[in-house]
Amino acid sequence: MADTTDVQSQMVEHRFRITRVGVTGVKKPIVVERPSGRRTLNATIDVFVDLPYDQKGSHMSRNVEVTGEVVDKSVREPVKGLENLAADMCDMLLDRHEYASYSEVDIKADYFLEKESPKGRRSLESYKIRAKGEGYRKKDDDTEREIMKFIGATVVGINACPCAMETVKDEYKKRYPKHTRALEELPTITHNQRNKSTLMVEVPNDKEIEVNDIIEILESSVSSPTHEILKREDEAEVVMQAHENPKFVEDIVRDVLSKCLDKYHDYPDSAHIEVKSKSEESIHKHDAFAERVTTFGELRK
Amino acid sequence: MADTTDVQSQMVEHRFRITRVGVTGVKKPIVVERPSGRRTLNATIDVFVDLPYDQKGSHMSRNVEVTGEVVDKSVREPVKGLENLAADMCDMLLDRHEYASYSEVDIKADYFLEKESPKGRRSLESYKIRAKGEGYRKKDDDTEREIMKFIGATVVGINACPCAMETVKDEYKKRYPKHTRALEELPTITHNQRNKSTLMVEVPNDKEIEVNDIIEILESSVSSPTHEILKREDEAEVVMQAHENPKFVEDIVRDVLSKCLDKYHDYPDSAHIEVKSKSEESIHKHDAFAERVTTFGELRK
Amino acid sequence: MADTTDVQSQMVEHRFRITRVGVTGVKKPIVVERPSGRRTLNATIDVFVDLPYDQKGSHMSRNVEVTGEVVDKSVREPVKGLENLAADMCDMLLDRHEYASYSEVDIKADYFLEKESPKGRRSLESYKIRAKGEGYRKKDDDTEREIMKFIGATVVGINACPCAMETVKDEYKKRYPKHTRALEELPTITHNQRNKSTLMVEVPNDKEIEVNDIIEILESSVSSPTHEILKREDEAEVVMQAHENPKFVEDIVRDVLSKCLDKYHDYPDSAHIEVKSKSEESIHKHDAFAERVTTFGELRK
Amino acid sequence: MADTTDVQSQMVEHRFRITRVGVTGVKKPIVVERPSGRRTLNATIDVFVDLPYDQKGSHMSRNVEVTGEVVDKSVREPVKGLENLAADMCDMLLDRHEYASYSEVDIKADYFLEKESPKGRRSLESYKIRAKGEGYRKKDDDTEREIMKFIGATVVGINACPCAMETVKDEYKKRYPKHTRALEELPTITHNQRNKSTLMVEVPNDKEIEVNDIIEILESSVSSPTHEILKREDEAEVVMQAHENPKFVEDIVRDVLSKCLDKYHDYPDSAHIEVKSKSEESIHKHDAFAERVTTFGELRK
Repeated sequence: MADTTDVQSQMVEHRFRITRVGVTGVKKPIVVERPSGRRTLNATIDVFVDLPYDQKGSHMSRNVEVTGEVVDKSVREPVKGLENLAADMCDMLLDRHEYASYSEVDIKADYFLEKESPKGRRSLESYKIRAKGEGYRKKDDDTEREIMKFIGATVVGINACPCAMETVKDEYKKRYPKHTRALEELPTITHNQRNKSTLMVEVPNDKEIEVNDIIEILESSVSSPTHEILKREDEAEVVMQAHENPKFVEDIVRDVLSKCLDKYHDYPDSAHIEVKSKSEESIHKHDAFAERVTTFGELRK
Repeated sequence: MADTTDVQSQMVEHRFRITRVGVTGVKKPIVVERPSGRRTLNATIDVFVDLPYDQKGSHMSRNVEVTGEVVDKSVREPVKGLENLAADMCDMLLDRHEYASYSEVDIKADYFLEKESPKGRRSLESYKIRAKGEGYRKKDDDTEREIMKFIGATVVGINACPCAMETVKDEYKKRYPKHTRALEELPTITHNQRNKSTLMVEVPNDKEIEVNDIIEILESSVSSPTHEILKREDEAEVVMQAHENPKFVEDIVRDVLSKCLDKYHDYPDSAHIEVKSKSEESIHKHDAFAERVTTFGELRK
Repeated sequence: MADTTDVQSQMVEHRFRITRVGVTGVKKPIVVERPSGRRTLNATIDVFVDLPYDQKGSHMSRNVEVTGEVVDKSVREPVKGLENLAADMCDMLLDRHEYASYSEVDIKADYFLEKESPKGRRSLESYKIRAKGEGYRKKDDDTEREIMKFIGATVVGINACPCAMETVKDEYKKRYPKHTRALEELPTITHNQRNKSTLMVEVPNDKEIEVNDIIEILESSVSSPTHEILKREDEAEVVMQAHENPKFVEDIVRDVLSKCLDKYHDYPDSAHIEVKSKSEESIHKHDAFAERVTTFGELRK
Repeated sequence: MADTTDVQSQMVEHRFRITRVGVTGVKKPIVVERPSGRRTLNATIDVFVDLPYDQKGSHMSRNVEVTGEVVDKSVREPVKGLENLAADMCDMLLDRHEYASYSEVDIKADYFLEKESPKGRRSLESYKIRAKGEGYRKKDDDTEREIMKFIGATVVGINACPCAMETVKDEYKKRYPKHTRALEELPTITHNQRNKSTLMVEVPNDKEIEVNDIIEILESSVSSPTHEILKREDEAEVVMQAHENPKFVEDIVRDVLSKCLDKYHDYPDSAHIEVKSKSEESIHKHDAFAERVTTFGELRK
């Protein structure tokens, strides 16, 4: 389109660099290949590059073109994992935006896994997964690039509060001294609530990661996983398990960190890891939140 | 502005009536007079009229003008209640839109009330309130109009599930027969969660209503109200109260209906009432929901 | 589970009917068969029944069981359309909830269609589709039932305001009388913005409907469809088309109604139809909105 | 409450530090003193501290206590600015959480300013403001602390695309050569849309900042501010102004940066600044976004 005006490349009045410029909220279906078969993920994608001080505008349509191309390609040749797709896109973005030294892709998608309730009922449970890529052009002559990739998930679990459980137990022991033994041997009532916990891990370029493992780490770290379908005896099991396993959001974050150190023991010290846990407190109108943002190296100290 | 083209009044190609046309999401601060003093509510307002088949467009700026005028007036002469403001606006809308036979105003606002925790700690708790007005031009010569008004609120409470409580109790009795008596005398663990319950009542034109009463009816119908600030012994009280008072969403809706029939015993049969209760289930990823939409007359049958 | 306590069937204190009780926000992937091939839709599903005055609680897990069964079945035998799935679920719900006289299913899903930009670039565009079913048990002995089904979609288009266009043109003619002819022959600047328009149609039991037609009706009724990928000359075409075709939200609603009367000319008078259009006004902080809720019979008058 | 179990201070199994732990979404009304008089802001507040590796849980109720105390105090002694409130809270949090070395407070609130339309109509326009504080305990003996504070706002404006304007102009010149002069002298049609732009500035401890200035900087950097109430001639003015002033999101970010360098010329190099601009593109289903996160020192290079 040589005959239209390239406004994006015109003179710039205020010559500041732009950290990130791009498009957000692009929705596309992506075909991924999983050990359990092909599946289509409905993804919402953000795509950014940086912009040097002397370039007026970024060519935004190139971001959407890259997105469209990888999505089209995924139909013919399913993607091995969203984090690899994000990394590939970061590389392509540095090709297309010759003025950029940074590229970033963020992909979020609903995800389903077949799970079993405590009494063996199978059903599809829903999760959020998220992949991220970051591309760095290390030298101006483009002879060196670094691409980083991240994968993560959010699970909806239940957590039961260990503090209120102890306080109620203390109180009941005072009120009902004859039931002291039962209070010691049975879980005591406490508040429990919907908990949303998130793990995001940087995947070294020589490693592959299975997002189902991320989900497994998260679900095994809340007081109990939740299930869409529970008959009465399942419900009782989930309630009992959650109360035998009371957790603060801080506990959940630490348990996830600990499991990641075990599971990904061969990850380099430089690899990033982020864990968040949010409890939609049943006794409050606000949420409780804990977070650790760090590297594997820091955790190993 | 007589010299600009009135596109809104031009010929219409497809001559269909429009049920509602207007503006949504107008944000304004409104000063209301409460027994406890003046307060400023941050309101989000939707304003609609209907449009006859032969009028191309509605004059939308008139809706925002009416909104601006009542808001300005509220600063000088605080409003007695949002439902009265909504009703007044409906009347003004029928004045300004001479072609309309219907007008509607919907106002939502955050609202704060000082409340006491079980152990007497006072704090400001937050609620959502909602007011609605509907205006009807009954005769074409505008000699008769009907204005209806509604007021309501949403509270964030806690509810504990009575069903899982029974199932766990049955299970624990089997597993721990020696603790049968304790299980009979103490509340058993169950799932509890954040519950959002809503009541909306039509206020007859010869009545005044106190929105704090609406909130009181709702908070007394959940398993326990929630509080922003709870020290340990408060927490224990809320947990114990919720478990002594387990409720389905269906129970909450029925309790609210019953209290409204008592409290508003002199409301006419024609007055509308809506009750909703939603539990953000701690053991599921989905919510549980119950609703009754009816009239006082139907409830009295 | 005969040996657990059926709390749901226990005595009721306040004997009021519940209009709707059920679960909301259940997420499931559903496999549908389209002329263009199989595709998986990520659906969010609400499922309700009513509850008679003398039944304490609804058996909510039955709602999720019905959902799980139809979803599982869709993998083996893809569904012909979400509206048929919703209708089938309504029927199943009346089977499972023997005390219910009403059932309702509401399904929302992201949807993708390949579309062409003005200059022929093909890309997948995203839409929201929605299906609804309502089931009525007409006689207590269950010898008669009525099932209604609805299908609809929301498209994101652009609309350009015809009123501001005329006012600016009038103003420019005053300021630049020498350009009067150009102002008459070229579209004048106006505000344009993201518009979300929605159509929902009741599908008679002896008819089949194609959701792509619903999308086509909506996209041809806004000032111009939008596209995810547009190179410069495409952008110019969309801008020109939108300005040659300026529309109020009222115009969009009426155009959709008119096209539905043509397209579904053989639908019975009793069939319901709902059209909404919302413009996220670029010159205001609020939105403009128009809606018609009616039947084909009313429109034909 | 010496006689209840302090679960938070018990032994920790997995000894990892927690970066941030606290409560999110606490809603409170805060009374602030403005040159234009007192006003009540409905704030949503997040409060965090860090947690050392050897402390099981954070005492979350202390966060809400601090919040309640400053809110209560604001009624008697109105706050000078939300950023000062956030800074004070950070200091108090380090007092109450003796184990914490970091504290953070994030406050968001709706805000209203009286503004004038192009033709002089006055109305209250709505904005979002945001304040943030960060507290650092620099030495273990608590003899040194650093408190940082930030204030910012988001405005809803309109931006018109300069690129599509040029492409359409080029196209129209080809199609209508006789109107070349008009096309050169009058603004050409383009897509315009709702734009949300955000500025966040670190306020040095020896400076005061006026949030209305932040809003002024943002509103003067979009193609035109938006207004809730516009009669026809106002609408035309906004449309004309926006088209005489077309802007990419990149341009908006740079203009805001440039104005901040002027306005806050005496701010130290270390002071942080963040600018974002998001356009809800009328010709696309996705948004366009630009961001710069930096310091005044970097901008001055």
